[in-house]
Amino acid sequence: MKKDIEKKELTKKSEDFSKWYTEIILKARLADYAPVKGCMVFRPYGYAIWENIQKILDDWIKKANVKNAYFPLFIPEQLLKKEKDHIEGFSPELAVVTIGGGKKLEEKLVVRPTSETIMYEMFSKWIESWRDLPFMVNQWCNVVRWEKRPRLFIRNIEFLWQEGHTVHASEKEALKMVDWALDSYIKLYREFFAIDGIAGKKSESEKFPGAVDTNTYEMLMPDGKVLQGCTSHDLGRNFSKAFNINFIDKNGVSRIPWQTSWGLSTRSIGALVMAHGDDNGLIIPPKIAPVQVIIIPVLNIKEKNARNKIAGKVYDIKKDMEKNGIRVEISEDNNSSLGRQLNDCELKGIPLKIVFGSREYRQKKVVLSRRDKLSEKGEEIGFAELSSEVIKTLKDIQDNLFKKSKKHLKENIKECADYQEFKDILKKEKGFIKAYWCEDPKCEAKIKEETKATTRVLPRDSKDEKGKCIYCGKAAARKWIFAQAY
Amino acid sequence: MKKDIEKKELTKKSEDFSKWYTEIILKARLADYAPVKGCMVFRPYGYAIWENIQKILDDWIKKANVKNAYFPLFIPEQLLKKEKDHIEGFSPELAVVTIGGGKKLEEKLVVRPTSETIMYEMFSKWIESWRDLPFMVNQWCNVVRWEKRPRLFIRNIEFLWQEGHTVHASEKEALKMVDWALDSYIKLYREFFAIDGIAGKKSESEKFPGAVDTNTYEMLMPDGKVLQGCTSHDLGRNFSKAFNINFIDKNGVSRIPWQTSWGLSTRSIGALVMAHGDDNGLIIPPKIAPVQVIIIPVLNIKEKNARNKIAGKVYDIKKDMEKNGIRVEISEDNNSSLGRQLNDCELKGIPLKIVFGSREYRQKKVVLSRRDKLSEKGEEIGFAELSSEVIKTLKDIQDNLFKKSKKHLKENIKECADYQEFKDILKKEKGFIKAYWCEDPKCEAKIKEETKATTRVLPRDSKDEKGKCIYCGKAAARKWIFAQAY
Repeated sequence: MKKDIEKKELTKKSEDFSKWYTEIILKARLADYAPVKGCMVFRPYGYAIWENIQKILDDWIKKANVKNAYFPLFIPEQLLKKEKDHIEGFSPELAVVTIGGGKKLEEKLVVRPTSETIMYEMFSKWIESWRDLPFMVNQWCNVVRWEKRPRLFIRNIEFLWQEGHTVHASEKEALKMVDWALDSYIKLYREFFAIDGIAGKKSESEKFPGAVDTNTYEMLMPDGKVLQGCTSHDLGRNFSKAFNINFIDKNGVSRIPWQTSWGLSTRSIGALVMAHGDDNGLIIPPKIAPVQVIIIPVLNIKEKNARNKIAGKVYDIKKDMEKNGIRVEISEDNNSSLGRQLNDCELKGIPLKIVFGSREYRQKKVVLSRRDKLSEKGEEIGFAELSSEVIKTLKDIQDNLFKKSKKHLKENIKECADYQEFKDILKKEKGFIKAYWCEDPKCEAKIKEETKATTRVLPRDSKDEKGKCIYCGKAAARKWIFAQAY
Repeated sequence: MKKDIEKKELTKKSEDFSKWYTEIILKARLADYAPVKGCMVFRPYGYAIWENIQKILDDWIKKANVKNAYFPLFIPEQLLKKEKDHIEGFSPELAVVTIGGGKKLEEKLVVRPTSETIMYEMFSKWIESWRDLPFMVNQWCNVVRWEKRPRLFIRNIEFLWQEGHTVHASEKEALKMVDWALDSYIKLYREFFAIDGIAGKKSESEKFPGAVDTNTYEMLMPDGKVLQGCTSHDLGRNFSKAFNINFIDKNGVSRIPWQTSWGLSTRSIGALVMAHGDDNGLIIPPKIAPVQVIIIPVLNIKEKNARNKIAGKVYDIKKDMEKNGIRVEISEDNNSSLGRQLNDCELKGIPLKIVFGSREYRQKKVVLSRRDKLSEKGEEIGFAELSSEVIKTLKDIQDNLFKKSKKHLKENIKECADYQEFKDILKKEKGFIKAYWCEDPKCEAKIKEETKATTRVLPRDSKDEKGKCIYCGKAAARKWIFAQAY
């Protein structure tokens, strides 16, 4: 009764992508729906992926000399209103606390949708002189945005993220920071998530409320829709002016500093699920996978001594792999058949499986089964070479997944100069469309209205050219990337 | 103007403990007051202490096979009401969201004060059979409790913590888990925080709302008041009954499982500050310290080449220490005098200081200055022995702090059989009082009313004896620990 979804067969990804997405998250126990609509529970297997992401990113953040800190969940309504564009952008999405300790509050408290305002109120108190700059903090926390169309990982009322916030004495330094954050996210997605994408700048209408510029990494999902993976904002001096942040420079002159903010959230796990899974379940890239190798011991043999020998050897193999930095687990699901255990590992997307029974024990060899190449029968590998072979194969899986992702991206960026063709693409296979746009928000709005496609990004390497806007035909200097987005 | 508190001289701990406590937290930049009364900001230096605590505890939690997960911040009001004692205990402290996305919500959402109810609602869905048990999760998160008398770290509207929650097939196994959690916290406080305390059971009136039993570790602060450091609850089957959690046992019979929950919060940092500081500032035990050693280079020499040589050598020393697992930093505060830099390091409680100038460079020897023994001049140590000597000295500081704490505790537990004497102690030096109590909540309430002292704990090693209640004189079987508490 309780675990209905876990007992039903998985919908095929190739047949109903949207249904598959929800089912695989529930079946692989990455997450579950919470009692409050729009909230979700991160179950241990899903949260372990987030912990791996945190480990990688937190290390880079610390190396960049950005310090972790923690600011309050509650923001006084007045504070949020200090930056005009900011409050306008966020006001439809706010959750508001009006009662505290049994009493109606005098001032309403907003549950943070992001922390610019609460942080910068403190920054203005802390920053005095050029000696305090650059001032750089990062926070790992939960944020709340009231989503009307929730979807597991992708859009939830509450999600987890990191948000970095920096203050600089010069614009040049701030822009370098914006690039550093974007580069870090690109590296995370390409080298760890094995998902290729397009990095660049957002349009005026799509940028962060209060920012001068927003940069992002956009990834194409298998259904032709696009997912925004992160943001890195050049805040200019918009917030520092609104929050009265200033510093005395080396000449004793009071000046207004430049700011940046940048974030990556648990939404990224949604991208991971969508990008790599198949009809049999998840495929988690080895560098992110909570479990990289699973050993399934076959212990249904009568003779106790033989059974103990297998169990002992499996334990030794695990220890040796762990010594080599491999994340390995032994399947303890002794009550299920081997077939069911194998299915479960496939569902969970564990990169490598090893079945270990009396034959393997006797012949001192095992076979590595790759999750990304289910039909391929691996070679037999001797115990002595096992760890090194596993490391090699994990790397190969990682590379293979990224190669596929690169190919998928490359094949689905279409240059387009004709609006009818533009519309046809969006009705059928979708994907990224590269087209001239005059940068008038009116054309952008019309295109969105007529095709549901938005400007996703102006690619980083764009050069000024001469062309005609796909919508109005007026002069356009740059090709933008359009797509329907999640 | 902005940093008033940082520029004023530190109040002496020996003269005004309470004032010193707030000032040192602000001056050492551990934390700051937030715009919302009762909320606080964890500044990088304070948060780094929390990160160290997390690293230690998270490792133990994972080794105990408890998996990290994340449950929603928002709990529907109805859910919180399912366990009668639980809602009664928490209702005066709740923050309530009544508006979401611009609309009044149909059902009010409580911001979690603790996560039993939201978690157990999910557990009842996930747990089906004995194969799912023990079911063990832990969560690192923020929680909100509306505090009327806030105090930095000790009592705040929002604080950070870990909360472990486990479900077991037998009571025996659950009780073992309760002990494991308490033992882990004791170990953390004794071996890492270097704070001795008394572990044991809470009285009926002081236990967690909804629990069968609450266990805790109580620590004596320098002002004679006591701080509760953690809790480990035996929840019995109170919540599993209320939330309809049950499992099919090996014989196919449906049964109700036993539960535990246990938590440690950022309050622990308040204990750390109070327990070890002195008139000059913080003293942070080396095992918890974000920075264990600070090297202050003296570079105010004209000759550039000589200056470079010093800077180079300091860098080499740092690298060597880091290779040996020492958390070391080079002071980059080149604009302040040496005296001011030394003061600042003392304020921050960094365990070891090394001043490095041309004399040290020439003689190939440095002196280690211990934060816990400011007046003691250390021996000169050659470069080759430096890392090993630092490791030895850090261990000695850690041991020395704990020895002091043990002594302080031992000297301040007073056995008391006379109520007048009991009252006198609480008027003067305070501390722990060990006294017979009949275990009638009425006596406990009267004692609290008359002396502000509460039953803190029934020590773990208590044996049944025969005595008379300190208040009513009736038969009492056990000596309880009383104290005024934070």
